[in-house]
Amino acid sequence: MTSDPFSSRCCRVAVLGFGTVGSAVARRLAADDTPFQLTHIFDRRAAEKRCAAGIDDAVAWTSDIDDVLHADADIVVETIGGVDPAATWIRAALTAGKSVVTANKQVMARHAAPLLTLAAQQGRQLRFEAAVGGAMPIVRAIGDGLAGDRIVAIDAILNGTTNAVFTTIETTGCSLDAAVRAAQALGYAETDPAADLDGDDARAKLAILCALAFGLRVDPAAIGGRSCASTTAADFLRVRRRGATIRQLAHADYDRATATLTAWVAPTDVAGASLFGRTVGPQNAAIVTGEHSGEIGIFGAGAGGEATAVAILSDVAAIARDRAAIVPPPVLTANFILQTPDFDRVEVAC
Amino acid sequence: MTSDPFSSRCCRVAVLGFGTVGSAVARRLAADDTPFQLTHIFDRRAAEKRCAAGIDDAVAWTSDIDDVLHADADIVVETIGGVDPAATWIRAALTAGKSVVTANKQVMARHAAPLLTLAAQQGRQLRFEAAVGGAMPIVRAIGDGLAGDRIVAIDAILNGTTNAVFTTIETTGCSLDAAVRAAQALGYAETDPAADLDGDDARAKLAILCALAFGLRVDPAAIGGRSCASTTAADFLRVRRRGATIRQLAHADYDRATATLTAWVAPTDVAGASLFGRTVGPQNAAIVTGEHSGEIGIFGAGAGGEATAVAILSDVAAIARDRAAIVPPPVLTANFILQTPDFDRVEVAC
Repeated sequence: MTSDPFSSRCCRVAVLGFGTVGSAVARRLAADDTPFQLTHIFDRRAAEKRCAAGIDDAVAWTSDIDDVLHADADIVVETIGGVDPAATWIRAALTAGKSVVTANKQVMARHAAPLLTLAAQQGRQLRFEAAVGGAMPIVRAIGDGLAGDRIVAIDAILNGTTNAVFTTIETTGCSLDAAVRAAQALGYAETDPAADLDGDDARAKLAILCALAFGLRVDPAAIGGRSCASTTAADFLRVRRRGATIRQLAHADYDRATATLTAWVAPTDVAGASLFGRTVGPQNAAIVTGEHSGEIGIFGAGAGGEATAVAILSDVAAIARDRAAIVPPPVLTANFILQTPDFDRVEVAC
Repeated sequence: MTSDPFSSRCCRVAVLGFGTVGSAVARRLAADDTPFQLTHIFDRRAAEKRCAAGIDDAVAWTSDIDDVLHADADIVVETIGGVDPAATWIRAALTAGKSVVTANKQVMARHAAPLLTLAAQQGRQLRFEAAVGGAMPIVRAIGDGLAGDRIVAIDAILNGTTNAVFTTIETTGCSLDAAVRAAQALGYAETDPAADLDGDDARAKLAILCALAFGLRVDPAAIGGRSCASTTAADFLRVRRRGATIRQLAHADYDRATATLTAWVAPTDVAGASLFGRTVGPQNAAIVTGEHSGEIGIFGAGAGGEATAVAILSDVAAIARDRAAIVPPPVLTANFILQTPDFDRVEVAC
């Protein structure tokens, strides 16, 4: 409960990556109204980006990661993306005694436990709200807000790009390719949208949520489902007749008695009036079902530099607020059965 | 990220109040699968309630608050409700070196700043997720998850009782009195539902959210609006013709440039298909608008012992996870203008 969320002690922050998210974070850190001091910006093309960036001259730009690792920043914000070298650099930053805030779903889906253990050993923090759900604070909702419940299921729209593509098809009747091009024009889709449409992005995020909710170490690649790449306008027309639409849903439920996790990412028929049916454009949404609390829903901007920057800066603020905090590392088990329904036979409805 | 949210060190917990919420908390703490030890239950009618409670004999029941204050519990859970003596006992528990988890919206709406300051001075924590929104983790969403944004507005259904009453009128066309009796029969309404229908309950919760979101010390009694007590089935029929329904909404927006807070709690026309129109029974819902993240929504069970117990146990888990954490107390200002629209003239639509 603070009048200014950044009213804590001044904190020195370095940002890795000056892309959509990194530049949004850097600009907010460099603004006059935060007590944070932006000390370094690392980018492979630092020299080139520096000129157009409009960031205070006092900030050191570098293309040498060691400049950041050896500097006196308290917190390193990682917005590079991809597993390598991001995981290596996160590890190096923690080893160098810095706390780390990352937006990197691939690293957190694969290396969360050892990195969080390293952070605790170092007396530092590794926070990753931005890795799942953009500005929608679902990592805190599951990891903290529902820690007093036993979560039994998660259903979510976790990929803003696919959702933007699907809602364009839904409203215009265009082809998937045309909808992808529209999303690219609006900055919602990468040049190659395969990781979004095939579900790799959502699978990584779902694996992170399974760790938080169920304590399971899930290999994202082992999560089944179906790609959204072959969904057509005709599919949308077909389901619309019964008041439904189609969304890329990520689902996980865990039966603790049999240690069986059912998890998948697939295009799914959802009621048009449901939370998921009403989630349009690059929005994300999730329904978390707890044994005691029932269904808790959350939704918000799932993509975009500004929204993701909010999640990152909230993590930076949390670290600054209590720099002595030791977050106990997770105890994840791989001792469970992972199953996926047979999508050729089972109709998934939500 | 833990397999078991309660996997932290064992923590000794005392519960004040053995009503709907307190008994749900006590039963979960007494269950075999938590590492917490329920040490004391304080209730004015302890002797009488003990027999029917079915709680482990090792737990000490008492009607003397000093038994709890002088005991070696690490955390005191306060579910008494009301301002007095709850505020006095929270203060006494913090002074005695205990952390406190409270569900008490009236205390937190009126005394948050001094109590949180006392907690920080004592090196202890005071947490209050359960004071607003039942199982819906909105205190964390605003205080932590959106700390990296600048919140500009909050719209929310914060009183589950009124929402249950309104949705009964909406679906059955019955009178408000009949709907209140139905809610009482289901355990959603107190014998005297005035604090719910008049908006006192929602005003206290809105004051807490204004402190979290805007850093303002708002007197709940100064928040304007209109009572829901005179809303009739005919009102619902009238708005239904245009696809709308009626909900008790709590609204706050803050213009930092002019230091002007606009806040009210009132029966409000909302689109039937909107988040609020779709929030039925004793559910709560909120839309928080941030300058950078846009609209973030959250909804879930707003009332009931089990749901509120989830919020309390999540706070207990957070304290247990890092007992050395010092949460900086808030800096709240009373230096602002509070205004309420003229409800006789302005039609509020959402």
